[in-house]
Amino acid sequence: MRNVFGNNLTITLFGESHGDAIGACIDGLSSGIYIDEEFIAKQMDKRKPKGSISTARKESDVCHIVSGVFEGYTTGTTLTIIITNDNKISKDYEKTKDIARPSHADFSASKRYLGFQDYRGGGHFSGRLTAAIVACGAICLQMLDSKGIKVASHIKSIGNIEDDDFDMSIIDEQMDKLNDSYFATLNDDISDKMQRLIEDMAKNMDSIGGSIETIVTNVPSGIGEPYFDSIESIISHGLFSIGAIKAVEFGDGIAMSKMSGSKANDPFRIQDGKVVTVTNHNGGINGGITNGMPIIVRSYIKPTPSIYQKQDSINFKTMTNETLEIKGRHDPCITHRIRVVIDSMIAICLCDMLQTRNTTLYFNAKEKL
Amino acid sequence: MRNVFGNNLTITLFGESHGDAIGACIDGLSSGIYIDEEFIAKQMDKRKPKGSISTARKESDVCHIVSGVFEGYTTGTTLTIIITNDNKISKDYEKTKDIARPSHADFSASKRYLGFQDYRGGGHFSGRLTAAIVACGAICLQMLDSKGIKVASHIKSIGNIEDDDFDMSIIDEQMDKLNDSYFATLNDDISDKMQRLIEDMAKNMDSIGGSIETIVTNVPSGIGEPYFDSIESIISHGLFSIGAIKAVEFGDGIAMSKMSGSKANDPFRIQDGKVVTVTNHNGGINGGITNGMPIIVRSYIKPTPSIYQKQDSINFKTMTNETLEIKGRHDPCITHRIRVVIDSMIAICLCDMLQTRNTTLYFNAKEKL
Amino acid sequence: MRNVFGNNLTITLFGESHGDAIGACIDGLSSGIYIDEEFIAKQMDKRKPKGSISTARKESDVCHIVSGVFEGYTTGTTLTIIITNDNKISKDYEKTKDIARPSHADFSASKRYLGFQDYRGGGHFSGRLTAAIVACGAICLQMLDSKGIKVASHIKSIGNIEDDDFDMSIIDEQMDKLNDSYFATLNDDISDKMQRLIEDMAKNMDSIGGSIETIVTNVPSGIGEPYFDSIESIISHGLFSIGAIKAVEFGDGIAMSKMSGSKANDPFRIQDGKVVTVTNHNGGINGGITNGMPIIVRSYIKPTPSIYQKQDSINFKTMTNETLEIKGRHDPCITHRIRVVIDSMIAICLCDMLQTRNTTLYFNAKEKL
Amino acid sequence: MRNVFGNNLTITLFGESHGDAIGACIDGLSSGIYIDEEFIAKQMDKRKPKGSISTARKESDVCHIVSGVFEGYTTGTTLTIIITNDNKISKDYEKTKDIARPSHADFSASKRYLGFQDYRGGGHFSGRLTAAIVACGAICLQMLDSKGIKVASHIKSIGNIEDDDFDMSIIDEQMDKLNDSYFATLNDDISDKMQRLIEDMAKNMDSIGGSIETIVTNVPSGIGEPYFDSIESIISHGLFSIGAIKAVEFGDGIAMSKMSGSKANDPFRIQDGKVVTVTNHNGGINGGITNGMPIIVRSYIKPTPSIYQKQDSINFKTMTNETLEIKGRHDPCITHRIRVVIDSMIAICLCDMLQTRNTTLYFNAKEKL
Repeated sequence: MRNVFGNNLTITLFGESHGDAIGACIDGLSSGIYIDEEFIAKQMDKRKPKGSISTARKESDVCHIVSGVFEGYTTGTTLTIIITNDNKISKDYEKTKDIARPSHADFSASKRYLGFQDYRGGGHFSGRLTAAIVACGAICLQMLDSKGIKVASHIKSIGNIEDDDFDMSIIDEQMDKLNDSYFATLNDDISDKMQRLIEDMAKNMDSIGGSIETIVTNVPSGIGEPYFDSIESIISHGLFSIGAIKAVEFGDGIAMSKMSGSKANDPFRIQDGKVVTVTNHNGGINGGITNGMPIIVRSYIKPTPSIYQKQDSINFKTMTNETLEIKGRHDPCITHRIRVVIDSMIAICLCDMLQTRNTTLYFNAKEKL
Repeated sequence: MRNVFGNNLTITLFGESHGDAIGACIDGLSSGIYIDEEFIAKQMDKRKPKGSISTARKESDVCHIVSGVFEGYTTGTTLTIIITNDNKISKDYEKTKDIARPSHADFSASKRYLGFQDYRGGGHFSGRLTAAIVACGAICLQMLDSKGIKVASHIKSIGNIEDDDFDMSIIDEQMDKLNDSYFATLNDDISDKMQRLIEDMAKNMDSIGGSIETIVTNVPSGIGEPYFDSIESIISHGLFSIGAIKAVEFGDGIAMSKMSGSKANDPFRIQDGKVVTVTNHNGGINGGITNGMPIIVRSYIKPTPSIYQKQDSINFKTMTNETLEIKGRHDPCITHRIRVVIDSMIAICLCDMLQTRNTTLYFNAKEKL
Repeated sequence: MRNVFGNNLTITLFGESHGDAIGACIDGLSSGIYIDEEFIAKQMDKRKPKGSISTARKESDVCHIVSGVFEGYTTGTTLTIIITNDNKISKDYEKTKDIARPSHADFSASKRYLGFQDYRGGGHFSGRLTAAIVACGAICLQMLDSKGIKVASHIKSIGNIEDDDFDMSIIDEQMDKLNDSYFATLNDDISDKMQRLIEDMAKNMDSIGGSIETIVTNVPSGIGEPYFDSIESIISHGLFSIGAIKAVEFGDGIAMSKMSGSKANDPFRIQDGKVVTVTNHNGGINGGITNGMPIIVRSYIKPTPSIYQKQDSINFKTMTNETLEIKGRHDPCITHRIRVVIDSMIAICLCDMLQTRNTTLYFNAKEKL
Repeated sequence: MRNVFGNNLTITLFGESHGDAIGACIDGLSSGIYIDEEFIAKQMDKRKPKGSISTARKESDVCHIVSGVFEGYTTGTTLTIIITNDNKISKDYEKTKDIARPSHADFSASKRYLGFQDYRGGGHFSGRLTAAIVACGAICLQMLDSKGIKVASHIKSIGNIEDDDFDMSIIDEQMDKLNDSYFATLNDDISDKMQRLIEDMAKNMDSIGGSIETIVTNVPSGIGEPYFDSIESIISHGLFSIGAIKAVEFGDGIAMSKMSGSKANDPFRIQDGKVVTVTNHNGGINGGITNGMPIIVRSYIKPTPSIYQKQDSINFKTMTNETLEIKGRHDPCITHRIRVVIDSMIAICLCDMLQTRNTTLYFNAKEKL
């Protein structure tokens, strides 16, 4: 599928950055789920550009639910969210229509869509579409929360500056604090350092990348659909669709590839009548299936391609070399804003997997979830 | 889907390590493709355990094609490959049936399949299933080759030992050499170092991880299906299903997250009437769509969980703590053998995407591939 | 899938009869297709209730395209159509909320959605949703038309009154006339008879069923995806989702089951350098694949369940027997209005199949469509 | 999909009539289901040609399960059934390779697969593939049986000869008798009449069609996935893929289209604390969802195209007119043999829908199945 994602909780995405509206349909929801529109708005807020570290573009991002909810609860039919685009300055993009912005989708998309794509503001490739992901994700986060499953992320790095690691002994507290934050780090001093670095890059008409580390707690064991729909496969499929993400790690990731087996293995123990692992290098996943330990995922974000510095490029209509000076309003760093998109996407994937897990329940009397 | 993968070239995987046979169905192939069974056998050979760096288990891995081929050419109907399991020592696994091997799927799978899974040799979770992936991948690699698209990988690292980087000025030559190798590195001295490290780990009854770097050349631009089926999404979905893979990078990956935009961007140029980028930090992909430059992917493999050292674990039937000493035959390192599985999976994903790319051709007279 | 349909042209449907809006997303369209909004409106008009043979409910049915079109042409990204519900009288439904209307979805839906469904006007089960099908179908009919493929239907029967058969010697003319009609028959006298029967049923506070016969001309041969996605499978899947349809025939259908093979077979002939069949009992399809002859499909529609006569029923909340007198505005017959829905659904299915047909083109140089 | 079918119970079909083997993979089964190989053999037997009313071809049809079963129970991974083709007389087909047999797939398939299809015995289009459907169906029928859901069919007609109707007062008894029959009718005298008609057609080197009526009892209410995956949509999709089926009816089908609403409606009643309908014109389905009453489906089968009489046809290689005299071994009637294929397909569809029904259970605590 292309703009459709998910086997038993299916998201259909639509919209262009400068079109009338963006939005999404969610099909496959249970009926009777309470929709908390305040929580949706709170999540949308984490995505908005704010302050000197973000773009000057202001979006109201109000979500209108036009189907699938009746008297506050899901009906079980398609739930459709529409977000009207209200702050469009299209003329910024007229002059550069056929110029391929480096690291942007302009050229590759022209080969895919043959020049009919909506070029304004990146069209369907704009980060604006992530607003619809966040709205869907908000609903999924609440569904997970109703089962005690919690998701939270922190900005692990901006450039070469690194945040602290999670402290499992106070993890609930840390997750709550992160979920109430806009620039979400574990360490406040490091947060200041990071924001100053972003401002410096902006002054240089440049941009900087970063990374997000996500933890999910209280996931039931046994979730995942090998061979091909392992938990890692589904989550990475979702994360890599977000755009700007260039690498994904699970558990200790790359570090694990340098370890010996005796160091990397997570021994099992019975603790308080429950199965746990003594360490968690695997990040809560064995053989593509959850084992009940916290899931750890890291997503790496490349620096925003749109910078104000002069760049070499081409005009792909005339096939000539050109220089490019980008106008419009662009973020020097999107890592802090993409965090809630990552939380949302992971929540969407988990809900789909939890629903898929149930497909074998009917004929297997022994399975209880 | 679970054991079914792909939208327009669909693979169905089946088999348990110690069952009668493993295999795969490929649905959606064009008719009239010549099936080179010698090439399939050559690919299977790269996956086999050989020498002192691998397990003592010998498998013949003969592929029988039982449908979908007539007089040497594909018919366009389901092509089914069957590989009989001929070297099974099941008794190695009897004693440890209910013991959860650390970092293995035993426990998580018991929660998913409730104790009915075939525990012998890892059952459906065994690396044996990758033999079927390699057989399918061989057919896909030939399909790509018929269009001039080439795939090759080298062992980028074993533990902390790193191979040289690709040299784009002699890349075709390097790719050919790798595709004729079993322990595939660019630098022969480093190859020796790596193999000695693996032997050392084996002597210590331990194991070691590594990484594989893959390059794909001559991919047409415009391949990819945003929003959700970006090239990275599809390829990572496939790679993370292989098992033992804990991280995936595209282009400069994690390094890119530490860069500034001015350094990370790939400026476009017209060269010999073709659009190229001066650098290739993005690894041939912009906005989820190929831009014609070589695709670069890196996969990180954790150390083999099955080690002969004594380990702490549990019996998940009786819910008691136990110690575990694994018998059977296990590889101290699988990185060199998993390389052809990675090539195969990437080839399968690319073929599916190339076929999907064509779905809009009929109604759009302007598109030519 | 549930509210999502199609492999390479995917429709996502949403909306409740008395919710804010109904609509659909179309994903997988080629880019560069001209969207004729006048034609969409013309098709919507065929679905509206008019005159004494239909319900008194008036709907404006204006389609707003909020994504996927730029400067009049498709962009190749998701095209979303929204139709606002503007003529809602919800109070008609309050009193009968928990009463199961005979032959309606009230009871079965309550078992599926557990009482959370939107009961007003049939909610998601209302015929209103077919307005979105017609909008999508209009776009698909134009796509087919651009390739010379034509679709048209006539009301084959209302109750026991039957229209004439198609006359293949003047079929183009007949199809054009039908596509410009509201109450679409081949014979005008029979049209009058049918409409009088409908008015009689309305006077008796009753309803009547009918059937629609559809012909598709100039379909290329070779379209269909056996085993499971034969042309008949896909088309019947679409038709039976419409609601109120209780039977579907292809070619001579049931009559063929009573024939001998010598009478039923369609001999092949070369005519003007083209392959044709002398007869067309099979309705243009052999082995699930088109053979180039006109496709013939017949859909049978049950009488509208909502009648004003008093009926026995139950209250499924209190589990007691009740009598029911339906209020609201209901059609005595929907056959003439469902005709354009059937045309639309068949067009959607054909476009999906034509796009799917192309998936094997890339690797098979010999195939030309 | 093409040779892949089902959302949460997925069948992959493979094989050519004269290839090495035919078979199927079933993915998505619950673990722990007992596989009764005797019952599978019993079902396969109903499909075999027997006596003077069938072809002289003898097939052993032994099913080998090569994966997905361990110690007699499903593991929850892909279950693969292989049936070796052991009675092939390929030379019968050499001479007629490029001649398009009337009403067969030869010509249309040549347009789809461009001459690379396996023409021997109809290749992938042969009725032999239905043996794999019956094997999968046997497993599904047992799964349904474990929940008290029963499926049975009778031959409703051969040519113009009609069997009795079901008698709901003794339906269990009737269903058991049918499921133990080969030539399955309700009335033994009519059975004789039918078989004599078939023998007469054979003497005339001709063939005859028929119809099958199926009943399913004890289906839970609430099964079905509107909008697009209504029960009728899924079942008709499966039935129309079988080949030779030209029409499908649900409930009173075509007869309903001639009724008034007051006659066609099924009033609800509470009976013994359960919701029933007084009549069952709708065949157990309202709004695409089951209501708990027996499901009634009728499938109409065209006469076998392969007759020994001389027929006009073409050579589609040379594009010339030809006459055709078919050799080989062909059934004068397949209706009695196709009955178990229809039972199987309906069982497969129901199991997929029952598993899909569960996908919303996890997040909706109130739903109980």
